[in-house]
Amino acid sequence: MRMHKTRLEAFSDGVLAIIITIMVLELKVPHGESAQTLLPLLPVFLSYVLSFLYIGIYWNNHHHMLHASQKVDGPVLWANLHLLFWLSLLPFTTAWLGENHFAPVPAAAYGGVLAMCGISYLFLSLALVRLNGRDSTLGRALGRDLKGKVSLALYAAAIPLAFVNQWISIGLYVVVALMWFI
Amino acid sequence: MRMHKTRLEAFSDGVLAIIITIMVLELKVPHGESAQTLLPLLPVFLSYVLSFLYIGIYWNNHHHMLHASQKVDGPVLWANLHLLFWLSLLPFTTAWLGENHFAPVPAAAYGGVLAMCGISYLFLSLALVRLNGRDSTLGRALGRDLKGKVSLALYAAAIPLAFVNQWISIGLYVVVALMWFI
Amino acid sequence: MRMHKTRLEAFSDGVLAIIITIMVLELKVPHGESAQTLLPLLPVFLSYVLSFLYIGIYWNNHHHMLHASQKVDGPVLWANLHLLFWLSLLPFTTAWLGENHFAPVPAAAYGGVLAMCGISYLFLSLALVRLNGRDSTLGRALGRDLKGKVSLALYAAAIPLAFVNQWISIGLYVVVALMWFI
Amino acid sequence: MRMHKTRLEAFSDGVLAIIITIMVLELKVPHGESAQTLLPLLPVFLSYVLSFLYIGIYWNNHHHMLHASQKVDGPVLWANLHLLFWLSLLPFTTAWLGENHFAPVPAAAYGGVLAMCGISYLFLSLALVRLNGRDSTLGRALGRDLKGKVSLALYAAAIPLAFVNQWISIGLYVVVALMWFI
Repeated sequence: MRMHKTRLEAFSDGVLAIIITIMVLELKVPHGESAQTLLPLLPVFLSYVLSFLYIGIYWNNHHHMLHASQKVDGPVLWANLHLLFWLSLLPFTTAWLGENHFAPVPAAAYGGVLAMCGISYLFLSLALVRLNGRDSTLGRALGRDLKGKVSLALYAAAIPLAFVNQWISIGLYVVVALMWFI
Repeated sequence: MRMHKTRLEAFSDGVLAIIITIMVLELKVPHGESAQTLLPLLPVFLSYVLSFLYIGIYWNNHHHMLHASQKVDGPVLWANLHLLFWLSLLPFTTAWLGENHFAPVPAAAYGGVLAMCGISYLFLSLALVRLNGRDSTLGRALGRDLKGKVSLALYAAAIPLAFVNQWISIGLYVVVALMWFI
Repeated sequence: MRMHKTRLEAFSDGVLAIIITIMVLELKVPHGESAQTLLPLLPVFLSYVLSFLYIGIYWNNHHHMLHASQKVDGPVLWANLHLLFWLSLLPFTTAWLGENHFAPVPAAAYGGVLAMCGISYLFLSLALVRLNGRDSTLGRALGRDLKGKVSLALYAAAIPLAFVNQWISIGLYVVVALMWFI
Repeated sequence: MRMHKTRLEAFSDGVLAIIITIMVLELKVPHGESAQTLLPLLPVFLSYVLSFLYIGIYWNNHHHMLHASQKVDGPVLWANLHLLFWLSLLPFTTAWLGENHFAPVPAAAYGGVLAMCGISYLFLSLALVRLNGRDSTLGRALGRDLKGKVSLALYAAAIPLAFVNQWISIGLYVVVALMWFI
């Protein structure tokens, strides 16, 4: 199953590399040549930075989790595609958030996609633990996956809070990203 | 020929990763910030889900078939490029289908491209069996490829049926996808 | 230098996979839902088929040439990037050719880019022969590279002939592609 | 850690391959069919050539630096993502520079992104030296990294000089690229 794991990683790397790069296409080239023409791009740029960080974190974690796994099987392949599906929607919610200057509904939608990414990552880790055994290195490492659970709780809080004040939600997304980064 | 097989898989992974990701570019960011602005995107989103599933199934099957093959040769390389050609048209028919809210002609065209993908996949499997021998593991596995034949029959039915009622065709595409998924 | 060769191949595969896939983005989704709305796309589609075939041929030949080489060095890396540069212009000339229904100037430009691809491929093969030695398998295989020379001669003829009648040029491009395909 | 290094290289190759290829999308297909319609594309084309050269140089250097490293760790993964972040902004500044015919502000911004790429490359090399040891082959090779320091000094000069005369800055960018190329 060595080969299978390699192709799963290569395909995931490809999709993640494309997702991270097409997000930058939303930074539409301004028509003017002065520095002021860059100003309206600031929210799009900031949402790009946040999403770049998230994709980077997912790539990093995905990489460590797969590295710790001895093998992959059918359910793992599909759980992985399911994760890639939700990650592929991140460029869409990122652009929607950026172009509407962090408005409430796009801020909630951004959190919704992040939550689905988190849930599908959890499913992928469960599929890997089921395959490698609860007593494997992977099983024990993921058993204490506190960060994953805290992230999901914070997303669940951030989505309704976007309708109170979207900056609370944005703040929570930044907090989750920094929590993983450190 | 180890090397050859690796590059063929890497190139196919690259093309499939890009196809699956550029389809999401059709989900054009709405200009408004309310949840209602997402509603017109629903058919585009649903056709994206269906095509994501199809590309995922092709990646999965391609991966298993190549894994079972000991070697590759010139005809296999070209049969593989031929398959990638038809798969590369899937984002086009997906977008056409989604933007026209599953109208009859786009629904038939979608089935036409799926049928060509199925036929070129069959050609690729024949090229691999010819190379590995009818008695190889691959030869015997593909000999009973009932699912592939049923899929082609259902596509052949779905194309004319789109002009009777396109939802029959869409239903058949969903059935074929679920058949492979399970 | 094993590693170097692997990364050069992986990077080239990535660039070629992207080139082949972004060409399909020129097939703009028609706004209508009838089959007639596809008709104006026919020249764009045909130029896509021709260029897909060319990229496929380059991927195939690149793959065999690198496979035959024992090692790579600095000049090979740069000769490879030079080849990728010209190949990256193929989506541009393909789209220009398709959108202008095979007009003379785009037909000549298409041939010009193909000629530069052929010349840079020749440079890459010379860099590889210089490194591996004229008496290596690669050196002897490329010494008789008649097809490469004939292709360059046909491109050189096709460019001026586009101004007499562009269909002669298009015909020559098809002939070269088929010559490599067989 | 063999696996880790391979995936880091594969992911970087993917991102660099996409960056280099999406820049060509800025070469918008002209609507006319005469050679004159290509003329307005000349500055976009020239900025594409310059940026292609830069991405090529980064890929080359990245490749050699990682090849010389025995292992990678968390800080290296993040330093690498940081470098990819700044490189991903190059298509944006390239397009802005090209579409404004090398105006002063875009010329300064282009240099700013190049400088950030240079600084993040320096961070990546420091993270690798810290991990491999100052006395490793890599540590000694990077200790004399004169070119990297000269490049950063030239970018630092080019940014303010763009407001005196942008051609001085453009000239400096070309000089840095040629310095690395040779």
